[in-house]
Amino acid sequence: MQQHSNLWEPRYARRAERMSGSEIRELLKLLDQPDIISFAGGIPDPALFPEAEARSTGAEIMADPKRARAALQYAVSEGDPGLRSWITAHMTGLGVPCDIDNILVTSGSQQALDFLGRMLLTPGDTALVRWPTYLGALQAFNAYEPRYDRLDPEGANIDAADYAAAAGDFAPGASVKFAYAVPDFANPTGATMTFGAREKTLDLATKLDIAVIEDAAYTALRYEGEAIPSILAIDVARAGGINASRVIYCGTFSKTLSPGLRVGWICASKALISRLVLVKQASDLNSPPLNQMIIHRLAETVFDAKVEEARGEYRRRRDLMLAALERYMPTGVTWTEPEGGLFIWVSFPEKVDTKLLLERSVADAKVAFVPGRAFHADGSGGNTARFSFSLANATQIDRGIKALAKLIS
Amino acid sequence: MQQHSNLWEPRYARRAERMSGSEIRELLKLLDQPDIISFAGGIPDPALFPEAEARSTGAEIMADPKRARAALQYAVSEGDPGLRSWITAHMTGLGVPCDIDNILVTSGSQQALDFLGRMLLTPGDTALVRWPTYLGALQAFNAYEPRYDRLDPEGANIDAADYAAAAGDFAPGASVKFAYAVPDFANPTGATMTFGAREKTLDLATKLDIAVIEDAAYTALRYEGEAIPSILAIDVARAGGINASRVIYCGTFSKTLSPGLRVGWICASKALISRLVLVKQASDLNSPPLNQMIIHRLAETVFDAKVEEARGEYRRRRDLMLAALERYMPTGVTWTEPEGGLFIWVSFPEKVDTKLLLERSVADAKVAFVPGRAFHADGSGGNTARFSFSLANATQIDRGIKALAKLIS
Repeated sequence: MQQHSNLWEPRYARRAERMSGSEIRELLKLLDQPDIISFAGGIPDPALFPEAEARSTGAEIMADPKRARAALQYAVSEGDPGLRSWITAHMTGLGVPCDIDNILVTSGSQQALDFLGRMLLTPGDTALVRWPTYLGALQAFNAYEPRYDRLDPEGANIDAADYAAAAGDFAPGASVKFAYAVPDFANPTGATMTFGAREKTLDLATKLDIAVIEDAAYTALRYEGEAIPSILAIDVARAGGINASRVIYCGTFSKTLSPGLRVGWICASKALISRLVLVKQASDLNSPPLNQMIIHRLAETVFDAKVEEARGEYRRRRDLMLAALERYMPTGVTWTEPEGGLFIWVSFPEKVDTKLLLERSVADAKVAFVPGRAFHADGSGGNTARFSFSLANATQIDRGIKALAKLIS
Repeated sequence: MQQHSNLWEPRYARRAERMSGSEIRELLKLLDQPDIISFAGGIPDPALFPEAEARSTGAEIMADPKRARAALQYAVSEGDPGLRSWITAHMTGLGVPCDIDNILVTSGSQQALDFLGRMLLTPGDTALVRWPTYLGALQAFNAYEPRYDRLDPEGANIDAADYAAAAGDFAPGASVKFAYAVPDFANPTGATMTFGAREKTLDLATKLDIAVIEDAAYTALRYEGEAIPSILAIDVARAGGINASRVIYCGTFSKTLSPGLRVGWICASKALISRLVLVKQASDLNSPPLNQMIIHRLAETVFDAKVEEARGEYRRRRDLMLAALERYMPTGVTWTEPEGGLFIWVSFPEKVDTKLLLERSVADAKVAFVPGRAFHADGSGGNTARFSFSLANATQIDRGIKALAKLIS
């Protein structure tokens, strides 16, 4: 082996061909300049973190010798029992009666997606995803070499048999394994699936006899309108209980309390959770108990208040961005009006390539966003872009949208 | 889908057949009874954790608003830059000059093994492992469906061509991908590879043109004798630098500072690290920055002192266990005399099945250990067992070994 990177290449597993970097994360590194107005990140505003509470909670845990030792020692792969109890109560409040054996704690919901890809996908199997969908989900699943097909419950009613036939044609013995969706204020579109679309997704999954992976990363961040039952809640009502459900729910504290503590969870049938515990064990033994203890205590004490505060703040920024888009964007540019979450999805006229637009935008307008192509499993969406309002203030939103609009007018 | 677990089974990926639970971790749950003397665990003694220092360090980080926000926010996938710098200095001190781009922070070295299996193993490829070897490595690799062949650098000199031929015969297009070894005070045997055995491993890897995964989990815990250069250090000297090395070194703070904070690292060629960063990103985005900041500060301040303290304490317990084995065990029972680490490997007469012995031992002698079969990729080793002295005091060691010896006499 010599010094050149291409000498390692032939040694990698076949799946490495499918592993590529996140344009977004690479972009974020380049954008660490103070004069850039960034709508790119889509990460929570750290000013909203429960900083003081995390400090006192951490100190409290470490001041108790028994808990301090537990925090520094190996722990069970399933996750902190206290935190799992809190999550069962939280899920029950969301219409999903369950118990502690239905919960696995993960290191953020990204790890949940990785585990589910590993557990469910044999190379060549089909995963049904939205077009566009969360880029991190595609990255997690890609390691397990799936084929993607388009899940479109609001669109043309594609027959389950067509999905199954296409999957079988792709590779001998391969089949559709799951449908993946972010029903509430999706990354990247900000769109919310209607109750009807959730039911249709479940109908399709039932006909295909496959699992549904429901990514609820943004669910708590609703700014208007009534909450719609989760796909899991709908299926639990249909099937008679969580242990008979085909839905796998991925939750996280990243958008409500802290992304850096890396605590998320999977809520699903006991049978599946007991297998996923083995995946957790083989992957990293257990998530750090200190982080789980801190999140547990924060969840008990400030979850509702912090969610309320975040909702108010992000709602205001969403409204400012929607108003600026309305005020400045020329005809031919359209965008979503999200009921929650952190993103607005902008569609430019067909001729616009948002990757090129970004280059000009950063150079001439000092404004950044994420080009939409990366979110499409088929590489389409070249005229689309994701705008996040989560980290920008009123002045930045107005000036940034104005400068960008001028660039494309 | 109905309530029975076997209805989920057909939906799992093919690799799920290879995912089984750790007998050890299941065992540990059952052994949570105060009257059992346990030589099973093999986890560090929490009394040796830098509890007070972790408390003050955590408080210090959270008291600084800038660091507190960074601790609660998403972070770069590569790991905390300060910690990575400390690790480069540490590795340089171990004879491996390197820079920050040669280091990826992982959530313990278990995650490193998972990532390396994912990066290197196509189903059917061969991994060379010791017989017995670390069970967690087999569990991590199993998800990527390898075949195992026996790495035995101290034993018969098997020709590289034989390994390659066997790998090629196993599956079309498959090849040997890496050799995995724990050269210092291995889990489970406690054995140390001689300098010659390290060189022979590297010679074999060079002939096969494969990678070597060096698991250095216990390296810091040496109780006697001179440190032997790591396989990575030997190869760096041979190849002229880390970026030309075929060795991938997995380090961890779990056995020296705290397993619960879940901080380990991979040190390897930049080309490989840059690919592993993508695996990290797709797996869990980043390890929690708070944990990395705490470990970084502890590494800077108390690493040497804590390692010294742990060495003294574990050395004493090792000596007590070796003396008790000598005193009580009947003829026909043999054991290793480890120069470090947490384990002694005991071989009983061929006719003894240590799994059955454990049942009797827990019931009649109230003593627990880990049967050896699980550590063998080929299911052999039924008369062997792993004894850990890390959590037992003098009385427990003497009484436990005595009671067990009585049982088999």
